[in-house]
Amino acid sequence: MSAVVALDVGGTGLKGAVVDRSGRLLCAERRATPRDEGPQAIAEAALTFAGDLAAGGPARDAGGTVHVALAVPGLVDDTAGWVRLAPNLGWSDLPLRTLVEERLDLPALVWHDARAAALAEGMLGAARGARDWLLVTIGTGIGGAVIADGRALHGTRGAAGELGHIGVAPDGPLCACGKRGCVEALASGRNLSVRYAELTGEADVAAEQIVARAERGDVSAQLVWETAVGALAAGLAGCAALLDPELIVLGGGVASAGDRLRDPLARRLATEVRFPPAPPLRTAALGERAGWIGAALAGWQAAGAEPGEVARWTL
Amino acid sequence: MSAVVALDVGGTGLKGAVVDRSGRLLCAERRATPRDEGPQAIAEAALTFAGDLAAGGPARDAGGTVHVALAVPGLVDDTAGWVRLAPNLGWSDLPLRTLVEERLDLPALVWHDARAAALAEGMLGAARGARDWLLVTIGTGIGGAVIADGRALHGTRGAAGELGHIGVAPDGPLCACGKRGCVEALASGRNLSVRYAELTGEADVAAEQIVARAERGDVSAQLVWETAVGALAAGLAGCAALLDPELIVLGGGVASAGDRLRDPLARRLATEVRFPPAPPLRTAALGERAGWIGAALAGWQAAGAEPGEVARWTL
Repeated sequence: MSAVVALDVGGTGLKGAVVDRSGRLLCAERRATPRDEGPQAIAEAALTFAGDLAAGGPARDAGGTVHVALAVPGLVDDTAGWVRLAPNLGWSDLPLRTLVEERLDLPALVWHDARAAALAEGMLGAARGARDWLLVTIGTGIGGAVIADGRALHGTRGAAGELGHIGVAPDGPLCACGKRGCVEALASGRNLSVRYAELTGEADVAAEQIVARAERGDVSAQLVWETAVGALAAGLAGCAALLDPELIVLGGGVASAGDRLRDPLARRLATEVRFPPAPPLRTAALGERAGWIGAALAGWQAAGAEPGEVARWTL
Repeated sequence: MSAVVALDVGGTGLKGAVVDRSGRLLCAERRATPRDEGPQAIAEAALTFAGDLAAGGPARDAGGTVHVALAVPGLVDDTAGWVRLAPNLGWSDLPLRTLVEERLDLPALVWHDARAAALAEGMLGAARGARDWLLVTIGTGIGGAVIADGRALHGTRGAAGELGHIGVAPDGPLCACGKRGCVEALASGRNLSVRYAELTGEADVAAEQIVARAERGDVSAQLVWETAVGALAAGLAGCAALLDPELIVLGGGVASAGDRLRDPLARRLATEVRFPPAPPLRTAALGERAGWIGAALAGWQAAGAEPGEVARWTL
């Protein structure tokens, strides 16, 4: 019944999967991203990985690969399959879809990773059944996706959903984007560590450690975490006013804090949003797998599977 | 060739129009909103007005009314034609579409006024040809509409586009919504007057007067206007990050300041938005007519006119 190859291209790792039309995972593999070897080497590694999976035993046994689908972080034009800018991979203006199609002689698609994750959470995860909702991904950076009438908005340059760069503290710390006080500058995993190091002198403490220390009474960790939750609440309050979503889904590594993020954030959000009342918050269900699962869903739909068909997957 | 009755229901006036399928304005009339007589009287006035236009000479001469379309401010469920809450009219949970249909024995629709204005500006006005854009209406209050792929988002309760309640100054003045420092609390027409009165003791100076005084060197007026522009820039910067629009259209009474709003706002927005660059700003083209023109467009499309057909109107 043939196979789709899905690849989630991240700054530290490449996650690959081969999935058949019924949603069976035929093969899953992870390779390190060759960050130190430069943008070209990362692109080459992604192409080689996709090629290996497409031609590999599991895909061959299933009857051959019919589509290749990639999820990529950054500024991605999903329609053209073009990566405009991916700072974590060093890419700019990379016609990735064409490169894959030419190398593998297979139809391909390239989606922004948060929009792929939103497709997965919407069809199979925490937002199943929701039509108008918001995904916020809180990891090394902060991004997200806006889902309206069941479809993730693309925006005019593919940058819709970049809610990490909503400003919430005009005098706050400088963000990588050049602005002060973005949500990302206060609440991303990387910046939680930076803020904690500023207070304590202790560098490279991971976000999950900071959350754990805050729970154990570490006052610096509490301050950093409360500031982060407040920044997220302020940013999401603006999103809620603008979009009136029925649900906000919290994804990304920092959201794996679960209720330790969701509960205080819901309390803060309730004070920030007056009328209509704040939407409920839910922790993402698919974790780190959302990117490649979404790519596989998009790939199979591009290969002719109906939405109702892939919605029954139990991946 | 028959007629559609369009009615823009506002807090101070009701604007009615009778439009034929080719976009000819057969009749335009304005009546005062009976604010002092309460919510029931306002609803009755709207029903009577719509009935008078539907049965009047111009509609009869055109071959009869085929649809009635109303644009209403507040929290409006366009799909159900239900007004959940319209503070300026005193309405809550009013099944307006059903009331119109029963009274006039004609098919009707009820839309949020900013979404109606967005339809008009998108098809016939400042956003012609744009697919992903944002309308901000700066009048007595501040609202707007989010247009994605050519359609205005509705949100889960009909409240999408309420960007006046994006918070930009946590210690700012109290907003009518109960929160501090909303864009509306700093930049709406009504609040420009309130802020100016706080500084000078002079009450009820209209927004356009404040803009004129600021130009003539009135320091208090300059402060109020610069603060308003800064609040709008901060709010719109967040919207731009979240939605990546190709264009922002400035509508409502305060936007009739034209370049005196657009130019300083564009400068502030350029400093607030880093990457991707800030979208261009354009002043709305249809002014106060956008609400009823949008209602007429929606009414004619509901009555079977094709989008390509009504897009040729020269109203």
